[in-house]
Amino acid sequence: MKAVRLHRYEVRPVVEDVAEPQVSHPFDVVVKVGGAGLCRTDLHIVEGQWAAKSNVALPYTLGHENAGWVHAVGSAVEHLQPGDAVILHPLVTCGFCRACRAGDDVHCEAQAFPGIDSDGGMADLIKTSARSVVKLAPGVEPAAVAALADAGLTAYHAVKKAVPLLYPGSTCVVMGAGGLGHLGIQCLRAMSATRIVVLDRNEEALALTRAWGADETVVADGSQVDRVLELTDGKGAEVVLDFVGERGAERDAWAMTRRAGSDYVIGYGGTVDIPTIDVISTGRNVIGNLVGSYNDLVELMALAAGGRVKMLTQTYPLDAVNDAMDDLEAGRIRGRGILVPATSAG
Amino acid sequence: MKAVRLHRYEVRPVVEDVAEPQVSHPFDVVVKVGGAGLCRTDLHIVEGQWAAKSNVALPYTLGHENAGWVHAVGSAVEHLQPGDAVILHPLVTCGFCRACRAGDDVHCEAQAFPGIDSDGGMADLIKTSARSVVKLAPGVEPAAVAALADAGLTAYHAVKKAVPLLYPGSTCVVMGAGGLGHLGIQCLRAMSATRIVVLDRNEEALALTRAWGADETVVADGSQVDRVLELTDGKGAEVVLDFVGERGAERDAWAMTRRAGSDYVIGYGGTVDIPTIDVISTGRNVIGNLVGSYNDLVELMALAAGGRVKMLTQTYPLDAVNDAMDDLEAGRIRGRGILVPATSAG
Amino acid sequence: MKAVRLHRYEVRPVVEDVAEPQVSHPFDVVVKVGGAGLCRTDLHIVEGQWAAKSNVALPYTLGHENAGWVHAVGSAVEHLQPGDAVILHPLVTCGFCRACRAGDDVHCEAQAFPGIDSDGGMADLIKTSARSVVKLAPGVEPAAVAALADAGLTAYHAVKKAVPLLYPGSTCVVMGAGGLGHLGIQCLRAMSATRIVVLDRNEEALALTRAWGADETVVADGSQVDRVLELTDGKGAEVVLDFVGERGAERDAWAMTRRAGSDYVIGYGGTVDIPTIDVISTGRNVIGNLVGSYNDLVELMALAAGGRVKMLTQTYPLDAVNDAMDDLEAGRIRGRGILVPATSAG
Amino acid sequence: MKAVRLHRYEVRPVVEDVAEPQVSHPFDVVVKVGGAGLCRTDLHIVEGQWAAKSNVALPYTLGHENAGWVHAVGSAVEHLQPGDAVILHPLVTCGFCRACRAGDDVHCEAQAFPGIDSDGGMADLIKTSARSVVKLAPGVEPAAVAALADAGLTAYHAVKKAVPLLYPGSTCVVMGAGGLGHLGIQCLRAMSATRIVVLDRNEEALALTRAWGADETVVADGSQVDRVLELTDGKGAEVVLDFVGERGAERDAWAMTRRAGSDYVIGYGGTVDIPTIDVISTGRNVIGNLVGSYNDLVELMALAAGGRVKMLTQTYPLDAVNDAMDDLEAGRIRGRGILVPATSAG
Repeated sequence: MKAVRLHRYEVRPVVEDVAEPQVSHPFDVVVKVGGAGLCRTDLHIVEGQWAAKSNVALPYTLGHENAGWVHAVGSAVEHLQPGDAVILHPLVTCGFCRACRAGDDVHCEAQAFPGIDSDGGMADLIKTSARSVVKLAPGVEPAAVAALADAGLTAYHAVKKAVPLLYPGSTCVVMGAGGLGHLGIQCLRAMSATRIVVLDRNEEALALTRAWGADETVVADGSQVDRVLELTDGKGAEVVLDFVGERGAERDAWAMTRRAGSDYVIGYGGTVDIPTIDVISTGRNVIGNLVGSYNDLVELMALAAGGRVKMLTQTYPLDAVNDAMDDLEAGRIRGRGILVPATSAG
Repeated sequence: MKAVRLHRYEVRPVVEDVAEPQVSHPFDVVVKVGGAGLCRTDLHIVEGQWAAKSNVALPYTLGHENAGWVHAVGSAVEHLQPGDAVILHPLVTCGFCRACRAGDDVHCEAQAFPGIDSDGGMADLIKTSARSVVKLAPGVEPAAVAALADAGLTAYHAVKKAVPLLYPGSTCVVMGAGGLGHLGIQCLRAMSATRIVVLDRNEEALALTRAWGADETVVADGSQVDRVLELTDGKGAEVVLDFVGERGAERDAWAMTRRAGSDYVIGYGGTVDIPTIDVISTGRNVIGNLVGSYNDLVELMALAAGGRVKMLTQTYPLDAVNDAMDDLEAGRIRGRGILVPATSAG
Repeated sequence: MKAVRLHRYEVRPVVEDVAEPQVSHPFDVVVKVGGAGLCRTDLHIVEGQWAAKSNVALPYTLGHENAGWVHAVGSAVEHLQPGDAVILHPLVTCGFCRACRAGDDVHCEAQAFPGIDSDGGMADLIKTSARSVVKLAPGVEPAAVAALADAGLTAYHAVKKAVPLLYPGSTCVVMGAGGLGHLGIQCLRAMSATRIVVLDRNEEALALTRAWGADETVVADGSQVDRVLELTDGKGAEVVLDFVGERGAERDAWAMTRRAGSDYVIGYGGTVDIPTIDVISTGRNVIGNLVGSYNDLVELMALAAGGRVKMLTQTYPLDAVNDAMDDLEAGRIRGRGILVPATSAG
Repeated sequence: MKAVRLHRYEVRPVVEDVAEPQVSHPFDVVVKVGGAGLCRTDLHIVEGQWAAKSNVALPYTLGHENAGWVHAVGSAVEHLQPGDAVILHPLVTCGFCRACRAGDDVHCEAQAFPGIDSDGGMADLIKTSARSVVKLAPGVEPAAVAALADAGLTAYHAVKKAVPLLYPGSTCVVMGAGGLGHLGIQCLRAMSATRIVVLDRNEEALALTRAWGADETVVADGSQVDRVLELTDGKGAEVVLDFVGERGAERDAWAMTRRAGSDYVIGYGGTVDIPTIDVISTGRNVIGNLVGSYNDLVELMALAAGGRVKMLTQTYPLDAVNDAMDDLEAGRIRGRGILVPATSAG
């Protein structure tokens, strides 16, 4: 089969023939890929930023946001059939540890992360575990939702954790109107009546967020902290969702968080740097956010099936991966780039 | 001033002149009434159903859903000014007990309930406490929101308690598309992405609920339990909000609640009657719901100010109270009847 | 191997030779039984009370509270080794449904219940699933903890749900100082500083509860509701744990629950029968409680290993099952009767 | 009356005669002081560290941990009588804002902090508000509990927030076995079955913590992070309560927190400095902790009345304040220094 293989760091991946993955464990599932999202993390992997963290042996297949159709299942898999349209939770988890049993499988003690530390979904086929497979509702196309498997799931999870704090009359600041941010706004709108204030440097991106549910938009031109304080009687927001996490956003996020409020770190790259006296005298919190759980992904698919969450996508055939990477690097992709190895289960 | 006074049970109230209420306690607030909601409970009071519970001395002034403008304040009241447009939390609470301090002032240990156990708001003026007064956002008219002070607040409170259980993909059954039900549907839609299934005997009422956010409607013609089970793969709903609570609805509500789900009792008149083996073998819960707290009312006003919650009203001058009661008894009021003693603060 | 087999309802089981269970599914685990708790439910099964609910085909092997040592494991089981000392969660669960993933495996959509609807643990060997096996800490004997697998787990689970309501200064009523009650008292003491008030008809049983952590004891001689109200300034308890659930206890439990409080139904046999106006006007709740989850059982084992929870036991060899049943029926067992087919892994 | 007055920063306070505080507002309460705790913060105030934060006009009276007997009450105070033994919540709060109504009065929008920004309790009399007064149970002496009003309340509040995360089998690290730490350990033991691991540089202090409920002690000699990781299978603790917050403790606290765990900042002086990639890749949280609420103080008094929490104290007459400050600076006080202006209500 064809696969997007990374042979050396700092060199773009190539599309080449590799052996098809085989079912070996009783709970293995092999999926025919109908959509593999392209993510800025893929660029970072090529650059070598993840080499030490993932320890993956090169060459390997990229792709950690995957959807498609079940191709083959292990002997013990009873709830999935070949042909089922599915989206894949990004992790392969054990199902036995406390975290897996407690709805927190993201912190599974024996996890794998296909596309990061093992072969991923930029290929005709991908192997995963039965525990990671979510069936799609009738009419939902794998390529349309693939990007929700990781980017969308991260945004959903952070929003879901924040919603109990966001009573009507509260304010939630969304920092960054990019891929995760626009998903986050839609999830917030679907699940709360909070006032949504969106920040971005790009006025055009901000303008679009009104349609997703934003109540206020603020251009991040240096005055953004003051603007948010003005909008909140000088108090700041109950929750700040920082989808940026670097280049000063992480400082602004804290400064926009009101007493007893919470600063949700989702983007990364920068550093949280706060005197402990500020933490304690205001009772503010810094909340860490990883990708969502399997059940979160099922919930996000319910939002997608109900039309409450949509993602703009731009599709490419599998062997155009480097065109897609060029477009991503050059900022030419509106929404999310999706590689489409196959367009049907057949 | 004019007031709607009940002199004898089973005899309609009369509109007559009474002395104006005076500020005597440092936290007293006297409000010029701009809207006093008429509620089925008022009919029940006239019938004498509340005589033993309220122990109120006759004659007294009816009206427990009130909004208007601040008229006079006690010596210690600093945050309210004459002329402020306000809505009144239905209870007068102490502010010192654990419940008042814990966001649960509805269970205040030293509460009064104007309109039920003391003089209410069907009058030119009503006396309450500074703790019970919510300022309205600019542009919100007292008469438009008065009915939210009790009926709306009850629906909001039940929904708010239920929302943490209502993840995307879950089902919430709303029993009854009347006054509370239609508020409940709007609150559910504003604060969750759950599938809302509404039950009512009245097909016309059901049809209207689609505009409020209902996803499915079920005519309560005897097959309603089966219909809900069909809609939920035979499992029932995660939450049932029973705004009826009598004439069999209370049995249906339990039967429509899935394993580990919760049956929220809001309406009343009937009896919960369940073998303990059914309670324990399915791990279901029966949740009691009273009116909401002061903070709940502030939140509901935020929903109203943002246009997320609207109540149909039909207004009457104060001295037409018995016409309004006739209309209510005959089912001629669409939405909620509101007595309007005054139309401005002046 | 030897097993306690029920051939006909209303006739005592017999100990006879049956074929050993074999590993067939990749996640099967066969356990050598070191302790099988005898429960009042076993008597009810013999009487036929569970025939319609369980639909089990006779003959079958009793025993739903089991601990022992791993004997054999399926091909996919990696985290268990023959010889490991273990206790078994009473259910066999799928691991794929929402409930299993959300820490609520008790509501698994595809569960089996060995000893109730399939062969149980009153035998030399029992077959279960890898998902149901909890390893014991070094030094913990299977026979000493077997009864915690179901009775103890039920008490623990109810207490764990109640603890967030039980702030210092609150009151928790424990109805019934029997097997579940005395476990419940120990769990409450270990996890909260609430005032524990224990009710029972048996003064001797009450006297023992002081050592388990009870603060007050009340003889259930007809005045128990009044006594609890006296102890709580006429208000009732924040939480009532009703381990009886029949013969009037279910009525008393509600009457002892204060406004905004919760009545936890754990025992069964009676009927919850409450006017909806009482439910709503006081905002009280009825909470259904089934056995605990796998993670709950791990937590309970941590309490047992730390010496915070102990269960009195009286052991019998496997073929003395009918002596044990006689003793149980006659009230001659102090604590819990445990059948002990084997005393070591060897 | 006598009062401990600060006239100039960097100069020790003097004991001098000042006018008695008078009841002027209807909810004022004047309390005869029976115990005023001496706190390291008092030393910091004298040094001028709080000058810019509190903006208090000099001279003023120190003392923010106070207990005593009601001396006089305002016209609207009905639930307190002269002679009542009481402890004072450290803040004077408004009772009208959302925070005050939601059980979070520590974040009151219109608060005062006697002893910090207005006259405190190192005096014969102190004026506070009726909302801040907690009645003591019979037999509880003001001087014995005064230090719980702030230091103890801070420790209790942090523990109470952490307890829901501390299931049996979890680990909670307590950094610092000083005043707050030893209160925190007692509160943890009373309200959870978590394994308590205490860190301190002082071996003698550590030895004492065993009696308070510590399960493990670790000398902070440079190897403390490794030791905690060893004790937790390399994973770290579910919760770290950092009562130090400076001199490296704040870095250690984060390093000892496991994936998905929470680092509670309580002490201060240092800086939280964490790359956002560490925050998000592990899903850890930093939780800010201020003093507890009024209801928290009531709960802590229940623990004290029940003997579950005790504080070592060393008493001084009011005019020995500078001896007490000398002893505190020199590390000669075991437990907490308490100034005792009066020993009875009379």
